[in-house]
Amino acid sequence: MSEEKLNIMRHSCAHIVAAAVKALYPKARFGVGPAVENGFYYDIDFSEPIGEADLAKIEEKAKELIVEDLPFAREEMEIDEAIKFFKKEKQDFKVELLKDLKEFGTTKMNSEEIPDVGGSSDKATIYRTGDFTDLCRGPHVSSSKEIGIFKLTKLAGAYWRGKSENPQLQRIYGVCFYTQEELDEYSRKLIEAEKRDHRKLGKELDLFHIDEVVGLGLPLWHPKGAILWRMIEDFWYKEHLKSGYSLVRTPHIGNKTLWETSGHWGFYSESMYPPMEVGQNLKERQNKDEVKESEEYLIKPMNCPFHIQIFKNHPHSYREFPLRWAECGTVYRFEKKGELSGLTRVRGFTQDDAHIICRSDQVEDELKRVVDFILFMFKSFGFAKDDINVYLSVRDSTSDKFVGAEDGWNFTEKVLEKVAAEKGLNFRKDVGGAAFYGPKLDFKIKDCLGREWQCSTLQFDFNMPQRFQMTFVNKDGKEEQPFMLHRALFGSFERFIGLLIEHYAGAFPLWVSPTQVKILPVSEKFNDYAEQIAEKLRNEDLRVEINETDESLGKKIRASEQEKVPYVLVIGEKEKTSGAVAVRKRKEGDMGALPLDDFLEKLKEEIKEKK
Amino acid sequence: MSEEKLNIMRHSCAHIVAAAVKALYPKARFGVGPAVENGFYYDIDFSEPIGEADLAKIEEKAKELIVEDLPFAREEMEIDEAIKFFKKEKQDFKVELLKDLKEFGTTKMNSEEIPDVGGSSDKATIYRTGDFTDLCRGPHVSSSKEIGIFKLTKLAGAYWRGKSENPQLQRIYGVCFYTQEELDEYSRKLIEAEKRDHRKLGKELDLFHIDEVVGLGLPLWHPKGAILWRMIEDFWYKEHLKSGYSLVRTPHIGNKTLWETSGHWGFYSESMYPPMEVGQNLKERQNKDEVKESEEYLIKPMNCPFHIQIFKNHPHSYREFPLRWAECGTVYRFEKKGELSGLTRVRGFTQDDAHIICRSDQVEDELKRVVDFILFMFKSFGFAKDDINVYLSVRDSTSDKFVGAEDGWNFTEKVLEKVAAEKGLNFRKDVGGAAFYGPKLDFKIKDCLGREWQCSTLQFDFNMPQRFQMTFVNKDGKEEQPFMLHRALFGSFERFIGLLIEHYAGAFPLWVSPTQVKILPVSEKFNDYAEQIAEKLRNEDLRVEINETDESLGKKIRASEQEKVPYVLVIGEKEKTSGAVAVRKRKEGDMGALPLDDFLEKLKEEIKEKK
Repeated sequence: MSEEKLNIMRHSCAHIVAAAVKALYPKARFGVGPAVENGFYYDIDFSEPIGEADLAKIEEKAKELIVEDLPFAREEMEIDEAIKFFKKEKQDFKVELLKDLKEFGTTKMNSEEIPDVGGSSDKATIYRTGDFTDLCRGPHVSSSKEIGIFKLTKLAGAYWRGKSENPQLQRIYGVCFYTQEELDEYSRKLIEAEKRDHRKLGKELDLFHIDEVVGLGLPLWHPKGAILWRMIEDFWYKEHLKSGYSLVRTPHIGNKTLWETSGHWGFYSESMYPPMEVGQNLKERQNKDEVKESEEYLIKPMNCPFHIQIFKNHPHSYREFPLRWAECGTVYRFEKKGELSGLTRVRGFTQDDAHIICRSDQVEDELKRVVDFILFMFKSFGFAKDDINVYLSVRDSTSDKFVGAEDGWNFTEKVLEKVAAEKGLNFRKDVGGAAFYGPKLDFKIKDCLGREWQCSTLQFDFNMPQRFQMTFVNKDGKEEQPFMLHRALFGSFERFIGLLIEHYAGAFPLWVSPTQVKILPVSEKFNDYAEQIAEKLRNEDLRVEINETDESLGKKIRASEQEKVPYVLVIGEKEKTSGAVAVRKRKEGDMGALPLDDFLEKLKEEIKEKK
Repeated sequence: MSEEKLNIMRHSCAHIVAAAVKALYPKARFGVGPAVENGFYYDIDFSEPIGEADLAKIEEKAKELIVEDLPFAREEMEIDEAIKFFKKEKQDFKVELLKDLKEFGTTKMNSEEIPDVGGSSDKATIYRTGDFTDLCRGPHVSSSKEIGIFKLTKLAGAYWRGKSENPQLQRIYGVCFYTQEELDEYSRKLIEAEKRDHRKLGKELDLFHIDEVVGLGLPLWHPKGAILWRMIEDFWYKEHLKSGYSLVRTPHIGNKTLWETSGHWGFYSESMYPPMEVGQNLKERQNKDEVKESEEYLIKPMNCPFHIQIFKNHPHSYREFPLRWAECGTVYRFEKKGELSGLTRVRGFTQDDAHIICRSDQVEDELKRVVDFILFMFKSFGFAKDDINVYLSVRDSTSDKFVGAEDGWNFTEKVLEKVAAEKGLNFRKDVGGAAFYGPKLDFKIKDCLGREWQCSTLQFDFNMPQRFQMTFVNKDGKEEQPFMLHRALFGSFERFIGLLIEHYAGAFPLWVSPTQVKILPVSEKFNDYAEQIAEKLRNEDLRVEINETDESLGKKIRASEQEKVPYVLVIGEKEKTSGAVAVRKRKEGDMGALPLDDFLEKLKEEIKEKK
């Protein structure tokens, strides 16, 4: 079935739920009720707030209405007539929407608001379902019987039109599918997703925590998480050096003027941490001569201006290009509290950033290299093509929000699409979705619930080279503006590791496992031999732990399984005598005894192959 | 000769220079003139400022006075008589010092001020040398003839008593030695130091720059500097893992309350960047509900509170100890502008930090391990024992500035000294030099001018475990406060790399060289073969560049020498036919032809041995 049909059914289900609410709570005033992923919601002002327990009653009533085979009747009304109608019904929120519609021709007041209810300054459309009438652009199913299987899932608070100065409504969430099987499948996925949730596994595997004392959205990485990070970072750096990148390294703070020049301070200061005002600070505290140095520093929300200042430190010739400068740079953005979530939405994150500065004749080749690099990275971490959605975002040529010369856009959009096609990317084209500074190619990872997470990105930038006056001397000895590409493979280390935790359900492949081998001596007598083996493996750069507690072997094995350690070695009299190790592999169980050297070779092979 | 005698001579030389100034500029008013490293200075208010060119005249006059064999005559004066005397002489600065002496019994108003001039509330000592009389505690040489060889080196500005609200004086700097040979040796060293200056080499070798647009003291690392850093960091991490450390990873900002708890905000806020006031910021810009999250964030001046919050995330048992948690954490301190210098004094620097948390019975062993680790690091970078000064800093038991229980101090001071002795460290003991929170062992690297730079440190901390209420459950099931050690091997990556640049004079050993091999095709015809060789070497993780310009071979070789590349390969017809490479080694020159595989083996061996 098409996504569109599904959404129509889900939105229709929202109407039915509203109708049920109206039947049960005649004083209820209705906000909006759109379809969302897997279902719908409806924002409602109950005169007395309801509780989670009331959802069952509403669900039952809605099911009765569905069985009644109620038609969805569309009707057009003069706008003033509609206002009068909803006033009589005491539906203030609908009246407010209609007044907006009358005045502005739309109910959408900003880009974050819920979709327009449709209609024009003259006319509005309404839908009647049984006793319930709603202001709505439609379309809907023709009868309630066409609504499949639904379930109300939770109750939450939501401000009317998302603004905290408005009254708070109650939001009823529901999921809705064609068949019971689909709903069951969804529930199974939910349970699986809960098991894989990186916040839950992060705690169980002792990888990280977010500390309210330190600050929201600022993860602290524990030993097992930090080594996982380091292994991934190490791989990242090595592959970048092999792929012809250079490294750069820049501070976390810089003078505010940098972001005034880039334009970010003007447009995005809301999502930046506020400035550190050094002068003001000094005035109170230090000698007057120091006050001369009155400056505002910002913690960086991106690395670009620093890389540009390195570029600008020397004049450049066309012969030096392409420059490929990479940095895992930690940046800070003051995301809203309500949007933070584990590692996938944080305030401090490490971009695996690189800037490619090149000539026009190098653009195509550079793009191909980046796309190959992105695909290689996904493959290295076991993501299949199906796990990734690719978006090509280009200009909407009717809009004036895009900066930079026409021919630059035409050229780069064309070459981006050509490369995406040649590389066999099954991309969707998003017209108008380009950044204001250039077209881009985004790679999003789907998690086990099908939610998309932006990871790799490849973006042209026509804005910064101009604002920072970046130039090089071309073949003809003239100054020219280079092409600049921003690109990230993971996007953010924090998010990517969060997704990896869920992708592997915490059972990381050997090469990045925080602990690769756990040695379990069957009794205290064999601790020394265990130490000898550990020493030998550690000298080969393996990460080894010994469980020397006096618990039973069974308990030790179960503990290692919970820690999801890839290999467990059981060490007793027989092993000590023969110089062997008894190997247990994660998920596969007992593999029998192996000479230590053979085991070591096996590990090295597996690490090399990143299995 | 003893340091003390040298200083007496140098200070006496300052008097003679002042006497020369008085003879040439009768209206000159004198500030203070102490001995400093290698010489002395004198702060003087000339009625009309003098220029660098005038120093020769002053130097000549002073030399005449030295030859005159003038005695240094000491005299005690009643304080009021002294005030009268210097008033008559129109020496206002001396009068000010005398008034302070009368009122406070000292002329030292704060810890940063120049040394006390001596004397008491009743009496002052003065020294007469020819026509020049100075307020001075002495001692001095008995006659000007005892002053060896001196040279005035530069003229600078200096505020009277270091305060910007006071008048600015001119400071005359001089160097002074017993013999001409010593002065010549000093000059030679100065020239050598200038050649090795990491700021100069940093520019020549394109390693880093400090950008006024970005901010003072915040280095930007260029590709060649960043790879040097990464190689050192990689080595650092691998050795830490081998030595039983775990890694942790923490953000660069955190809530101000962390440093209120630690006590740093109260005591050291002057040298911290000011807070980012998130709430205030939001009030102006965002929804009211977000304002609830009114908080102040600080960019971290140290990593400790974060590591402590990780510790506090779980309860701990004595069985888990020792914990060794390492992080290369970039911290930010707002050092005064005038104190900044290249990489050795910066505002943003990366501590190679670790915290060791352990029981009392583990302290001695942990200390030994750290000392061994420090010595291993120095050795790995070619520093000899003579390049390092070690200081053991303990309490002054008569002072009350030290926090923590008596027995903790006694125990740790004793064991620190024991370990330092057992490890054969030729340390100096600094009584009273301990941090207020615990005793410490510091390792300082001497540069080619003999200046000391604090690098490794090993410090006990009795303060933070108490303030953050860190505990573990001991063998008896009771809560106990653990021992906590701060330690750094390099101290700061920035400073250590700065010192390394000077230590190696930019000619880094192969294993950390930014470019390890430079390939020079004798003509364009051999570019392809050069690429093949580069590819092969890069696949072995070597850092290779090709000089494909059409310059002459001689010019290419000279360029590689200036870049201080360890190995240069010259590629022509003969090499291509035979599959060999013609090798030139840095400093050693032509080494003849080698089969490529043999050359590769040679490199690998050299990298392994860190030569």
